[in-house]
Amino acid sequence: MSDNGPTRDRLADAAGRLFQERGYAATGLNDILALAKAPKGSLYHHFTDGKEGLAIAAAKQAGARFLDTIRDDAALSRDSADMIVRFAGRLAGWLEQSDFRLGCPLATLTLEQAAVSDRLAETLSQIFASWQDALAERLETDRLDAGRSEALAGLALCSIEGALILARARRTSAPVRQAANTLAGIIGDEIRLRPA
Amino acid sequence: MSDNGPTRDRLADAAGRLFQERGYAATGLNDILALAKAPKGSLYHHFTDGKEGLAIAAAKQAGARFLDTIRDDAALSRDSADMIVRFAGRLAGWLEQSDFRLGCPLATLTLEQAAVSDRLAETLSQIFASWQDALAERLETDRLDAGRSEALAGLALCSIEGALILARARRTSAPVRQAANTLAGIIGDEIRLRPA
Repeated sequence: MSDNGPTRDRLADAAGRLFQERGYAATGLNDILALAKAPKGSLYHHFTDGKEGLAIAAAKQAGARFLDTIRDDAALSRDSADMIVRFAGRLAGWLEQSDFRLGCPLATLTLEQAAVSDRLAETLSQIFASWQDALAERLETDRLDAGRSEALAGLALCSIEGALILARARRTSAPVRQAANTLAGIIGDEIRLRPA
Repeated sequence: MSDNGPTRDRLADAAGRLFQERGYAATGLNDILALAKAPKGSLYHHFTDGKEGLAIAAAKQAGARFLDTIRDDAALSRDSADMIVRFAGRLAGWLEQSDFRLGCPLATLTLEQAAVSDRLAETLSQIFASWQDALAERLETDRLDAGRSEALAGLALCSIEGALILARARRTSAPVRQAANTLAGIIGDEIRLRPA
């Protein structure tokens, strides 16, 4: 089928968008088909395991996109403190443009995965690890040692993830920008104070 | 009615527990009644606005309990770095005991609130603010100035919140303990380096 790729991608994209906004349980297969403008038969053709398969594909697609964004921001920034502010600014912009509906693309799936499958949990875990590794790599470029880079990357990932939750509750991007600024100040100091 | 208080509390407790584990949309009113061991009529007697009212009551109840825990840990700890580790250790224990199902009591409600009501969003926002204020108060006791205490309390709240999400995906409490240890190290340094 010539549209194998595009239809599958459209379905995964639509599913990802709806899971991100409303959650997994609250999203019906018909909502996904309608948003993807895809015929009913296409869903089970591309995703023989139905909604679970869609969730895994949606997570992988969103995870890869986020990873590209982190890597882009890492390459564009003058140091890892700047990277955190840049990445958080981008997330804050997305939140604002979506009326505070679009936070982390994996958060709702993560909170619901226990009711879905171990395979989904494993996929989510790998994606979070890939984001943390990309942050840690940029920290190492600033000559922070591997252990410290990993610890700060973990703290950065957790604080951005949590700030996205608080931003949705408060309906302002302030928590994301503030957490990033505080963290960037701390990381900037560590970079300045590192042994020459 | 003599059981006004207890039945209402049992319903809010059961709702909070199920929302926390599975999310708002995935929880049916019958599941709540069954867990609370309450008769059907009691729900609309105590919560005339149904599931939305239950969500607000559940959030307030869980929020007050969490706030008490933060204040207890603040009182028991030798400084705010110790408070963060102590509080995170408690959360990590709850995660482990619940097979990584019980993270933040408000996270799923927060991600779903846009589809519920502005009143729920407002309630959640106030609860998060009460937690952050309690953390900031403890930081001020360590003679960090008000602005810095608020910034670090915000970072602490975001990182613990985010670490609870990652812990659920990875099915280990390691992200919670690691984020807390990294943050406690940073806060401990600031306390030691503050002007006398």
